[in-house]
Amino acid sequence: MKSRTSYHTFKTDKKMEFINITRTVAEEVEKSGIKEGMVLVNAMHITASVFINDEESGLKEDFLKWLEGLAPYDVDRYKHNLTMENNAHAHLKRTVMGREVVVAVTGGKLDFGPWEQIFYGEFDGQRPKKILIKVLGG
Amino acid sequence: MKSRTSYHTFKTDKKMEFINITRTVAEEVEKSGIKEGMVLVNAMHITASVFINDEESGLKEDFLKWLEGLAPYDVDRYKHNLTMENNAHAHLKRTVMGREVVVAVTGGKLDFGPWEQIFYGEFDGQRPKKILIKVLGG
Amino acid sequence: MKSRTSYHTFKTDKKMEFINITRTVAEEVEKSGIKEGMVLVNAMHITASVFINDEESGLKEDFLKWLEGLAPYDVDRYKHNLTMENNAHAHLKRTVMGREVVVAVTGGKLDFGPWEQIFYGEFDGQRPKKILIKVLGG
Repeated sequence: MKSRTSYHTFKTDKKMEFINITRTVAEEVEKSGIKEGMVLVNAMHITASVFINDEESGLKEDFLKWLEGLAPYDVDRYKHNLTMENNAHAHLKRTVMGREVVVAVTGGKLDFGPWEQIFYGEFDGQRPKKILIKVLGG
Repeated sequence: MKSRTSYHTFKTDKKMEFINITRTVAEEVEKSGIKEGMVLVNAMHITASVFINDEESGLKEDFLKWLEGLAPYDVDRYKHNLTMENNAHAHLKRTVMGREVVVAVTGGKLDFGPWEQIFYGEFDGQRPKKILIKVLGG
Repeated sequence: MKSRTSYHTFKTDKKMEFINITRTVAEEVEKSGIKEGMVLVNAMHITASVFINDEESGLKEDFLKWLEGLAPYDVDRYKHNLTMENNAHAHLKRTVMGREVVVAVTGGKLDFGPWEQIFYGEFDGQRPKKILIKVLGG
């Protein structure tokens, strides 16, 4: 059994932003030398997400608007923000989008459908935050 | 370490539909010969979901109605639909339900609680779409 | 390849409650003797969740209030409840929070960011229910 673990830091320009990290993950899979296995990609912070969807700019705007409807920024709405935070909304948004993805590695490559792309989803950004990529297999 | 990878195509009769795929996954686990491991089951399309819940027809209706409330079809609401698509809602619904499940394989079988069943959740169907099943272990 | 599987039962005092299970998972990882791998932690019941977020009491209240808004208890709203159940809402809440997490094991430990904690999320409690922890690796 082989494994490879790496950490990658992102600091977004905006408070909320989606970054396509498919290439980063594909490179880690290649470096691992693993032919058959799984790769775990997760946010290491609880106000950020890793998810799979489409690389389409309109859809990314739709996601942000939709999440704002489901879990508004509205500082006064949340008890968490009594702790000097203003990011309760970001904890909720990340929950909708998910913390992690697990992707099959087949023949040494990400085993993806035609439109699948991996994104880092930041909901409380403008500061350095990390993701973890771990490839496991043989 | 052993692995087995397979792909299964579904074409639903309706635009939105849930298909119980527990037996398909159980058969793949059995064919793999893996006794201890994990099985990843994921939609390969970004308007479909794989999730675990209850085989109960009323609940399935509840899920669809609930998702319609959270992420309405409403074509004009979404920028994604300016790209000649009408399925932005399906990207959002699939996000709520999740892309994938990872299930333990113990003693050569799916290690499930009493009511757990695996579903393919289609939100933009009536065309062939694939899932991936990958069993990994020893 | 090594693996370790265990089951843990919870009976919450309240109908809805979050229990921090990080220590339980960390102990299972240690007992497994696995240095590099992944650990799967999942609810075995379909009205409960396993998720990762922050150990902060205000935020936990925010989560419960937010989920009540997204998927109200309201017995009469759901067809599932025609089957003598009153827990349709719990199936939906668990869906938002997720069934499972997969966490990297690196150097024999949970490979976590600074604030990540694992929770059992109960939405139809006051009765014994189980989670599964499976560590896989080498």
